[in-house]
Amino acid sequence: MRDAYTEQLDELAESLAGMCDDVARAMEKATRSLLEADLRLAEEVIDEDVKIDEIRHTAEEKAFALLVLQAPVATDLRIVVSAIHGAGDIERMGDLALHVAQAARRRHPQPVLPEQIAPYFAEMGKVGVALAHKAATVIRSRDLAAAAELESDDDAMDDLHKHMFTVLMDRTWTHGVEAAVDVTLLARFYERYADHAVAVARRIVYVVTGQMPGPLAV
Amino acid sequence: MRDAYTEQLDELAESLAGMCDDVARAMEKATRSLLEADLRLAEEVIDEDVKIDEIRHTAEEKAFALLVLQAPVATDLRIVVSAIHGAGDIERMGDLALHVAQAARRRHPQPVLPEQIAPYFAEMGKVGVALAHKAATVIRSRDLAAAAELESDDDAMDDLHKHMFTVLMDRTWTHGVEAAVDVTLLARFYERYADHAVAVARRIVYVVTGQMPGPLAV
Repeated sequence: MRDAYTEQLDELAESLAGMCDDVARAMEKATRSLLEADLRLAEEVIDEDVKIDEIRHTAEEKAFALLVLQAPVATDLRIVVSAIHGAGDIERMGDLALHVAQAARRRHPQPVLPEQIAPYFAEMGKVGVALAHKAATVIRSRDLAAAAELESDDDAMDDLHKHMFTVLMDRTWTHGVEAAVDVTLLARFYERYADHAVAVARRIVYVVTGQMPGPLAV
Repeated sequence: MRDAYTEQLDELAESLAGMCDDVARAMEKATRSLLEADLRLAEEVIDEDVKIDEIRHTAEEKAFALLVLQAPVATDLRIVVSAIHGAGDIERMGDLALHVAQAARRRHPQPVLPEQIAPYFAEMGKVGVALAHKAATVIRSRDLAAAAELESDDDAMDDLHKHMFTVLMDRTWTHGVEAAVDVTLLARFYERYADHAVAVARRIVYVVTGQMPGPLAV
């Protein structure tokens, strides 16, 4: 019985880790669809989001079944509660990748981003995708050092996000209000995506140590 | 023992309902600080957000203790899991009210919003605050009709949000890029605030019926 139980806990963790890899791929494709005005790729991301929602639903059901059947305590209970939280965060990351793809589709065949701005988003995409994959690693390994790395990786995203605002507010911005609105929202999507990846890693720290790290700046 | 347990469940629900009322008041004040460029009020909201974070933390601890000590099943388990989710949503509503107040503080003594735009935000504030109070009522009453009302109230917010983009994209927008960026983010904060209130109500539907309503458009 105990073995089946441990297996169930491992399965739950693995579905969350797999979900992180899924939303990493979604953001990687969404970013490419944005940078290359690739409608086919944007629609792929949009169509696939429903799968991520389903995996979240299944993960929650697994967590719920564990609570009912096993009444876990201590670390095991922390794993299950963290999985419930984590599933929510990761689904939201999928939604944010979806929003990026929707922006690419909305402006197609026009590019969403002014040429001068595109490299920043290529970088935000890279940082975001790496964060999501690293969150998957942290879920699988429960490696506290890797969890701590996500915090500093997120600083890179915050710097890019802040820099976008400096560029937007600059008097030399010549791309008009529509592009400014798009860039504002898109930068926000990437920044929030990274925040959720960090939140996932923080929950793993909680699983291992029983303590949540200090609050995340929002 | 059973009575103490029911009392604990009620207490947990009441702390979440109280949290909803708190973030309603926070958004009410944040909106006033925005519309009246009232720095004192903005700082009040900013200072008080830490209290909301603490209440969330306490609510999660209560939920955790219930899981450990009572190993609830069926409806009771749904209440506890929904409380864990709800606490996250409501804390985020507090964060969004905080972001509105931060915008008011950042531009002080200048108003953030062009005069033409202010009435829309007065309305978004009113709709958001009403949604948060209604979410509190739904938590206390478990009234499914009231829970359904939140969905249609949220449509009003979505309409205001969409309308803001029409105004922003209009060629007659004369307020420049900085104001456009502020309006874009602020409108997003109000819209997300409303989404989280709806998510809280949906979890109550789940508590009562065992079924989640269909997905929330994001």
